[in-house]
Amino acid sequence: MSLHSLGICQAAELIAAGNITARALVDDCLQRIDEFEAEIQAWAWLDREYAQRQADRLDDARRHGKSLGKLHGVPLGIKDIIDTRMIPTEHGFALFEGRVPNSNATVIDKLQEHGAIIMGKTVTAALATLMPGKTANPHNSEHTPGGSSSGSAAAVAAYMVPGAVGTQTNGSVIRPAAFCGTVGFKPSYGLISRKGVLRQSPFLDQLGVFTRSVEDAALLAEAMAGADKDDASTLGFGAVPPLLSVCQSEPPVTPRFAFLRTSRWDELTDDSKAGLEQVVDALGDRVTEISLGESFDTLWEALKIVNSAEMATWYGPIYEKGSQYFLPIGDEAMAYGQSVCASDYINAMQSREIVNGILDEYFLEYDAIIAPAAPGEAPKGLDSTGNPMFSTPWTFCGVPAITLPLLQGESGLPVGVQLVGQRMDDARLLRTARWCMRTLTDRD
Amino acid sequence: MSLHSLGICQAAELIAAGNITARALVDDCLQRIDEFEAEIQAWAWLDREYAQRQADRLDDARRHGKSLGKLHGVPLGIKDIIDTRMIPTEHGFALFEGRVPNSNATVIDKLQEHGAIIMGKTVTAALATLMPGKTANPHNSEHTPGGSSSGSAAAVAAYMVPGAVGTQTNGSVIRPAAFCGTVGFKPSYGLISRKGVLRQSPFLDQLGVFTRSVEDAALLAEAMAGADKDDASTLGFGAVPPLLSVCQSEPPVTPRFAFLRTSRWDELTDDSKAGLEQVVDALGDRVTEISLGESFDTLWEALKIVNSAEMATWYGPIYEKGSQYFLPIGDEAMAYGQSVCASDYINAMQSREIVNGILDEYFLEYDAIIAPAAPGEAPKGLDSTGNPMFSTPWTFCGVPAITLPLLQGESGLPVGVQLVGQRMDDARLLRTARWCMRTLTDRD
Repeated sequence: MSLHSLGICQAAELIAAGNITARALVDDCLQRIDEFEAEIQAWAWLDREYAQRQADRLDDARRHGKSLGKLHGVPLGIKDIIDTRMIPTEHGFALFEGRVPNSNATVIDKLQEHGAIIMGKTVTAALATLMPGKTANPHNSEHTPGGSSSGSAAAVAAYMVPGAVGTQTNGSVIRPAAFCGTVGFKPSYGLISRKGVLRQSPFLDQLGVFTRSVEDAALLAEAMAGADKDDASTLGFGAVPPLLSVCQSEPPVTPRFAFLRTSRWDELTDDSKAGLEQVVDALGDRVTEISLGESFDTLWEALKIVNSAEMATWYGPIYEKGSQYFLPIGDEAMAYGQSVCASDYINAMQSREIVNGILDEYFLEYDAIIAPAAPGEAPKGLDSTGNPMFSTPWTFCGVPAITLPLLQGESGLPVGVQLVGQRMDDARLLRTARWCMRTLTDRD
Repeated sequence: MSLHSLGICQAAELIAAGNITARALVDDCLQRIDEFEAEIQAWAWLDREYAQRQADRLDDARRHGKSLGKLHGVPLGIKDIIDTRMIPTEHGFALFEGRVPNSNATVIDKLQEHGAIIMGKTVTAALATLMPGKTANPHNSEHTPGGSSSGSAAAVAAYMVPGAVGTQTNGSVIRPAAFCGTVGFKPSYGLISRKGVLRQSPFLDQLGVFTRSVEDAALLAEAMAGADKDDASTLGFGAVPPLLSVCQSEPPVTPRFAFLRTSRWDELTDDSKAGLEQVVDALGDRVTEISLGESFDTLWEALKIVNSAEMATWYGPIYEKGSQYFLPIGDEAMAYGQSVCASDYINAMQSREIVNGILDEYFLEYDAIIAPAAPGEAPKGLDSTGNPMFSTPWTFCGVPAITLPLLQGESGLPVGVQLVGQRMDDARLLRTARWCMRTLTDRD
């Protein structure tokens, strides 16, 4: 097995045991990047020597008996809207060309404390919402990798790095992960600090991870989690949950699932419908189909209201400087966002509590909700990143969600299956997801 | 000393020691109420036998060796917008006449766990913001007691109860306490749960207490504090701070004060200006005059935007049912609130973080800011509760504030002096306030 094929857990174990060096892993990943980057275009910024220097320093630390973090020597891709000290962070947007932050986002500090290597910055849609970046889908470069965390998804799918960090304000982790055939995990709202991450919509912005296994997602998210006084949303969680160890444990009883087609079911392609139904059939009597009522159906509109109003506010100063770069889609969104009245905004936010109250009841009985991750395979063309609609309600509720690469569409491209868990119970969702992978496939 | 003159700490100690009974204390307070209620009108609901039954039950529990809460046997007034199970809670508003909640607000549960007696419900301005209630100022019944927590302030000032609970969305604790000559303490935003309290403006609504000493305020607030999963604002605080023990301790060094006239200084009456300057002179070189910049001066407008937008949202359904009861002042506020756009609302909220960042710097050097509590003595007449402007910026920032009955105006009515502390450092503010009382008066 070549080094670039290693997952995060495997790589960290081998490095810790002295069986491989971080430098060898980084070099093999760089070679993989050299081979495929011209076609995939996953990277917004990458400095080979900078990555190698980090690896050498970490190998040196290990040789001198320093304590090792849980990601010691593991190279990661970082979405280019996450601030990295002294490394360009350009938000995929013309006006930020050459921007170099003076300090790290909190997650970068955490990742580095755990010994991770910043391999480079990955391509994002402009301001994580406007024009798609240059990245192509590793399974077929004529198709979008999804977005806005395009480069993070593609880099992991193309085995350029074992893991990458992205963000989701609507469907920017789950969708590209599903399109690229990786695991994509968006933890509960509040598990991971957003300090130092481009602020589009604070009620919605959430960090997420791309990996090639559920366990890797658990380890990476656990390393990023934790309270941060500079992000109030993180303050209600208490101690960091032991995501990896719970994920690796056997479920105390066989998991139970609720299958939710959602009111958007007709937007799914036929092959995706059939695939999802096969998964449900395979799980047999562990699954009960449910439907959620009117309150749930308001969430698409609620997200639009909240996202637009907050984006109009936080991107307002950027828009004033360069509205020409917002055309055409951003222009409309900004105008709509500016027109939202405060009462509608406040009422929309309120639906998070209402629907979570309803969902909490279901999670007494079910370990996870099974739902579509995206409308189907990655669409052809790079001028759109596809539709986030199947992430919308879960992002809005701030519940943890994971997409598993379980299916293939009619063109042979990957199709994800989304599992949704209870808010603040990310560990149970990960344990359930790993159980699914092992039960339905021969993989973890 | 008659029992109704006892403070909370004294009363709780005497009851715990078996020197007096809760029943004797309640009976003496009821006698005081019988004597003055016709003039003061502090109570919206009061059932003598219900209060006596609670006292008897608590005395019985003590005789049987049950563990005693820190407020065991202490009767309290509760503002009538705070839900009390099976006891009318009418929000001072015609449409809620006869409303009896099925469950307690979280603070009521906490107070009862600590052994407090619910003496009755105190008069509030309608919906805590519209028409004043019937209550008069105990120092001169032709003057307002302030509002909206009118009955709570008056009942404590008139020695009907040793303590009472109120709320502040703009200036509804500090102002009535200053007008009635009690201590009024509004802790940090988030210290006390608002679950079960009429929701007017969640970004601003805060609980507070009325007592006749700083120590009593510390004890009462401590009993009410604590995280509540149903009020997200409480989740960042961690353990309940030991307010009483810190308050009673000697400051490690003599406190230092910043004196802030605020840009509203000219709105103060001359006697209040002179009184406040005397206090500053008395503290001598412990005080440095400061001024805060433009960011601070935006807070009055910011509170107006946030309060109006949220009130329009949360009172919207009430307004639809009974807009005639909102006239004239509420009508205008609702119309303005409905017109606020989401961007202005979001930007206004943002100023809390900005200004707290500035204030945090000052609190490295100063233990408290000295500022006016109200424009002067309680105005004549009961058709207005006076102007909350001197509370506005502190409520908006969510910092702890306390008013001390240190001064007298030219009509002989009380004038308060406000001390403001650092957010989430309520204990230091209380210790500093007690030091002030002891240094400047012969009282605690």
